[in-house]
Amino acid sequence: MENHIIRAGIVGVSGYSGCSVLELLLRHPLVRVTYVSANNTEGKIEDLWPHLRQRTRLHCHKYNYDEAAEHCDLIFLAVPHTTAFTLAPPLLKAGLRVIDLSGDYRLNSPADYKAWYGTAHKDKMNLKKAVYGLPELFRVAIRDADLVSNPGCYPTAAILSLAPMVAIYTKDIEQIIIDAKSGTSGAGKKLSPAMMFGEIHENFRAYKVAQHQHTPEIEQFLSRIADKPMGVTFVPHILPIFRGILETIYVKLTAKISLPEIHALYQRFYKTEPFIRILPLGAQAETQQVRGTNFCDISLALNRAKDMVIITSTIDNLVKGAAGQAVQNMNIMCGFEEELSLI
Amino acid sequence: MENHIIRAGIVGVSGYSGCSVLELLLRHPLVRVTYVSANNTEGKIEDLWPHLRQRTRLHCHKYNYDEAAEHCDLIFLAVPHTTAFTLAPPLLKAGLRVIDLSGDYRLNSPADYKAWYGTAHKDKMNLKKAVYGLPELFRVAIRDADLVSNPGCYPTAAILSLAPMVAIYTKDIEQIIIDAKSGTSGAGKKLSPAMMFGEIHENFRAYKVAQHQHTPEIEQFLSRIADKPMGVTFVPHILPIFRGILETIYVKLTAKISLPEIHALYQRFYKTEPFIRILPLGAQAETQQVRGTNFCDISLALNRAKDMVIITSTIDNLVKGAAGQAVQNMNIMCGFEEELSLI
Amino acid sequence: MENHIIRAGIVGVSGYSGCSVLELLLRHPLVRVTYVSANNTEGKIEDLWPHLRQRTRLHCHKYNYDEAAEHCDLIFLAVPHTTAFTLAPPLLKAGLRVIDLSGDYRLNSPADYKAWYGTAHKDKMNLKKAVYGLPELFRVAIRDADLVSNPGCYPTAAILSLAPMVAIYTKDIEQIIIDAKSGTSGAGKKLSPAMMFGEIHENFRAYKVAQHQHTPEIEQFLSRIADKPMGVTFVPHILPIFRGILETIYVKLTAKISLPEIHALYQRFYKTEPFIRILPLGAQAETQQVRGTNFCDISLALNRAKDMVIITSTIDNLVKGAAGQAVQNMNIMCGFEEELSLI
Amino acid sequence: MENHIIRAGIVGVSGYSGCSVLELLLRHPLVRVTYVSANNTEGKIEDLWPHLRQRTRLHCHKYNYDEAAEHCDLIFLAVPHTTAFTLAPPLLKAGLRVIDLSGDYRLNSPADYKAWYGTAHKDKMNLKKAVYGLPELFRVAIRDADLVSNPGCYPTAAILSLAPMVAIYTKDIEQIIIDAKSGTSGAGKKLSPAMMFGEIHENFRAYKVAQHQHTPEIEQFLSRIADKPMGVTFVPHILPIFRGILETIYVKLTAKISLPEIHALYQRFYKTEPFIRILPLGAQAETQQVRGTNFCDISLALNRAKDMVIITSTIDNLVKGAAGQAVQNMNIMCGFEEELSLI
Repeated sequence: MENHIIRAGIVGVSGYSGCSVLELLLRHPLVRVTYVSANNTEGKIEDLWPHLRQRTRLHCHKYNYDEAAEHCDLIFLAVPHTTAFTLAPPLLKAGLRVIDLSGDYRLNSPADYKAWYGTAHKDKMNLKKAVYGLPELFRVAIRDADLVSNPGCYPTAAILSLAPMVAIYTKDIEQIIIDAKSGTSGAGKKLSPAMMFGEIHENFRAYKVAQHQHTPEIEQFLSRIADKPMGVTFVPHILPIFRGILETIYVKLTAKISLPEIHALYQRFYKTEPFIRILPLGAQAETQQVRGTNFCDISLALNRAKDMVIITSTIDNLVKGAAGQAVQNMNIMCGFEEELSLI
Repeated sequence: MENHIIRAGIVGVSGYSGCSVLELLLRHPLVRVTYVSANNTEGKIEDLWPHLRQRTRLHCHKYNYDEAAEHCDLIFLAVPHTTAFTLAPPLLKAGLRVIDLSGDYRLNSPADYKAWYGTAHKDKMNLKKAVYGLPELFRVAIRDADLVSNPGCYPTAAILSLAPMVAIYTKDIEQIIIDAKSGTSGAGKKLSPAMMFGEIHENFRAYKVAQHQHTPEIEQFLSRIADKPMGVTFVPHILPIFRGILETIYVKLTAKISLPEIHALYQRFYKTEPFIRILPLGAQAETQQVRGTNFCDISLALNRAKDMVIITSTIDNLVKGAAGQAVQNMNIMCGFEEELSLI
Repeated sequence: MENHIIRAGIVGVSGYSGCSVLELLLRHPLVRVTYVSANNTEGKIEDLWPHLRQRTRLHCHKYNYDEAAEHCDLIFLAVPHTTAFTLAPPLLKAGLRVIDLSGDYRLNSPADYKAWYGTAHKDKMNLKKAVYGLPELFRVAIRDADLVSNPGCYPTAAILSLAPMVAIYTKDIEQIIIDAKSGTSGAGKKLSPAMMFGEIHENFRAYKVAQHQHTPEIEQFLSRIADKPMGVTFVPHILPIFRGILETIYVKLTAKISLPEIHALYQRFYKTEPFIRILPLGAQAETQQVRGTNFCDISLALNRAKDMVIITSTIDNLVKGAAGQAVQNMNIMCGFEEELSLI
Repeated sequence: MENHIIRAGIVGVSGYSGCSVLELLLRHPLVRVTYVSANNTEGKIEDLWPHLRQRTRLHCHKYNYDEAAEHCDLIFLAVPHTTAFTLAPPLLKAGLRVIDLSGDYRLNSPADYKAWYGTAHKDKMNLKKAVYGLPELFRVAIRDADLVSNPGCYPTAAILSLAPMVAIYTKDIEQIIIDAKSGTSGAGKKLSPAMMFGEIHENFRAYKVAQHQHTPEIEQFLSRIADKPMGVTFVPHILPIFRGILETIYVKLTAKISLPEIHALYQRFYKTEPFIRILPLGAQAETQQVRGTNFCDISLALNRAKDMVIITSTIDNLVKGAAGQAVQNMNIMCGFEEELSLI
């Protein structure tokens, strides 16, 4: 194969997602990590992330455009919202390819961005070119994209779980409710009273009820699949676990459809996908079974009396919900085997 | 006051609910525990429950009707389903009052019992006399009951959360979904592979999806409040915590109702209730805040675009969801202050 | 009864210890909480501690000496180190009795304070009058004390575990090692990267190895009991639990002593103590069995080949290790029954 | 290199260690897993271990010697104690190489085996040939061994932590205490009341105090290193985590040695070892930092006043403490790169 080694950089390596990208790339046979940076931190990676001692000699620097552009072919932006607006444009202009793990290029409409992220969109030009990095739905476009917008963790599980239903039974769907539960790593590493051990351990609560910024992302892509507006009610909760998302999704139908028929549809829909596992009827997805993996597990049930399909799906929010999916996108963009370093 | 001391017995003290009843009664100023038994265990309570060492000198015996009837005025049955059918009738006949924490006397219809518990109902006579022990709704009937059927843990949170809506907005409710999450103590103390530390810790999953035996209990009492059939979709999950239930309840309305209006309704409805706390708008219930208490916390939100009311409510499944509610019922039955030993 | 109600105040009610004192006093039949304050917080207690909603209408104010002195007979200081130096003297002068939960009055020697707390002692006058509030050893002095210095959490478990050995086998002890493990609530409620859920959950580590400020407190009181200098090696660890301390204590002997003999000594030594439980030989103390209680459980073992006594003891660090012991001290100071509100 | 693919079998794949071996081998470039078996289970691996769905098509059979011998070059025995006595001899005779993860071939003396495992040793012949699979100390012998006895989890951390001290400061060591803490996976997957979530979560306790069967294993190898009898006091505890061991080791010296000197010794001793990390002075080992890895982290401290060296070391009990070390041994035995599939 004419595979040559890719030089990759990670901006935001001090966060959980950035670190997870680094971990995956360190074992990737066709990637060399040539640049890592973090906003407020300088020094050896092993001082930042002691679990990587003896694994890498990389130094972490404050971000510098010239160094990043010079040393890398492709950059992962694992940065807070609004930061990518500044970083992405010059890198793209210099010919680098960019995978942005933030929310900055996920919503097509700058007005939606304003409404849900509370600040104006600042890079409408690249927004038009950005490809949504959900390989199972947009693999072909990802291949040639210069800017891939890596999906949010909740939307990844939600859209993958709903795509077959929404695509095939479009007219029969009356209502969608997504009751989502996430481990704490989804909130990132920043200091917060709500994320102290004493506030999470032996506790459970909802947050941002029907107000989470992932709502419009889910609605936008379900609408695109359905080719008509699709709304959802989305309620996230915080679990006393570190990694993992489980979403319990209630799809109210206006028609009778049998569970085996739905199950067969899902199996067909994802037949060739390496990272989607449709569980046998009767089995239930568990976060533990996808921990540390790039899998999305999907289980199906039906409350026949109410014509209510109940989908439960799980991902590791740091892998399929962030870094793993980003590396999967990179593999596609670079023409590598899609599973490289992910299995 | 003419309060005299009640002699109480606990059958099934080796389980979590039975032990919790014992803990509450040990600090109750108007109750003497005169009898405790457990199916397979004999010996000192402190051998069974080491945390109670130096707290009580009670001995636990295999159940013996004569001793129970002779030494007690009132008996708590903290036994597995179907056991109460055998134990309750003779005790009632002997003039004792009985609080049954099992599911045996909760469903009015023996056919429902058969359908959901998988075995025939064996005491239809007492079933007719049993009073459902949810004080906030049935306090007057509880006062004079000889047989109180203590509610299930999930139904307690569900019915308390829905009663005001269902009572007042009966015609406007199109659909109810209850997404419930429980700590492991709800499953009792019995040995089970699914309840090993390695299967619960850093894990999350649904179980008995739309098939849990608490479903008809919830539907029966919502229907009674609404005075018309009310169905729900009920999906329980198991949390990596020991104590606590949180239920996220989605009520789809056919009419526009404002959130402040709903909030005001709930505050009025439960105004004089000592154990119901309607949280201020914006606040969210957390299991930690009811841990070890008899409170039920209820928080309210609205997805206005979808006319979807989102109620989150929490209880401690071993207290308001079992032993605490049982003691509250006892206090009512005996004419004691309702909060005795519960605050 | 000639018991009259005591008016008690709590300074530092926004911390875990202060809140725990409040919880205990709210159910105390002979105490009225007349004053609560916290450094940076004003407002209703229920805004500070939502789990206390509907339990109290107390308001929390910034500390004001005049109000505290006017409304209280006795004050609990649940404040950071060095704060008591400023607060205690005027209160004592005004005739109030003070129970200080900080480390400020525990070490007899200002030089030791300087060495281990890193700052000079600022109230040597009251230091001389302060009584160490470990009731099992100093009950008589506590009774008449105006200033009680409530023991540290680690020292409470350590000194209670070692007192019988040190008192009776003084000459036979060659060396003492204390390997201590604590839940996170011991670190208080302050924001800290090391106490985030992601740093504690599914993790375990030692900290301040042989450098913890509780070391001289343990040594001082063991030396007093032994009537000669006693040193220890003390290593604390942080457990992924919220409440509870377990200390594994290794006492190297220079003489053969049998385990039953040691066990009998411990039973005799603590025979009349309501809060000390000497476990039967073969049983092992568990933090869960003292959770939420004022008990100290002590279990004993012997490595005969090495003449090594191995003591494991447990307390709830927020109860016997802080608030519970403080209330026990208050009960003694006020001539109340010692167990009031603690069982 | 003339590396050819090895055909490997795993007996006991239904346990945590066996499954961990399988996970490591599935990503090993030079190994094909050709046989897996488990005592009581037949069927697809994905039914046994749902997290491996879509990762392997292996079938698990009840153990059959002929099939194992025919299809494998090397066998991992991840079986309970005493089982290897029956399985290993015929496999060795048939020319296969065997890595035994049980305790059957760890103790040189059958009398010790009898004393600590409670049953007679049944394969003294192979016991003499077995090589202890701790690569950092016995790499050369492992290379040519037919039967490798994989170390216990606790001994791995203990021996690696103590080897440099014991080797160099032999005469200066007066006493060794090992206070060990382990996650629950060390106890395996078998059903047990003590391992239920409710008994582990928010709990901590010691067990088998000074009576654990790993004690003689530690003493035997320390004695071999020291070339004189070395005893230890060993007390294990169970942590509310799934994976990870931390051992706090107290070495009492009869001479003054400086901490930097000890630190330099450890760095030299393990200079070329890929899986040993000597942490910088001041840093403390954490179980989280070795989770899922084959590393053993070692941190060093000194209580100068007591001449007490305090070593804290961590491993993942399922990796360096079991499966990872077994694969490391296999790599050495087969002449592969030692880190293959382990980094």
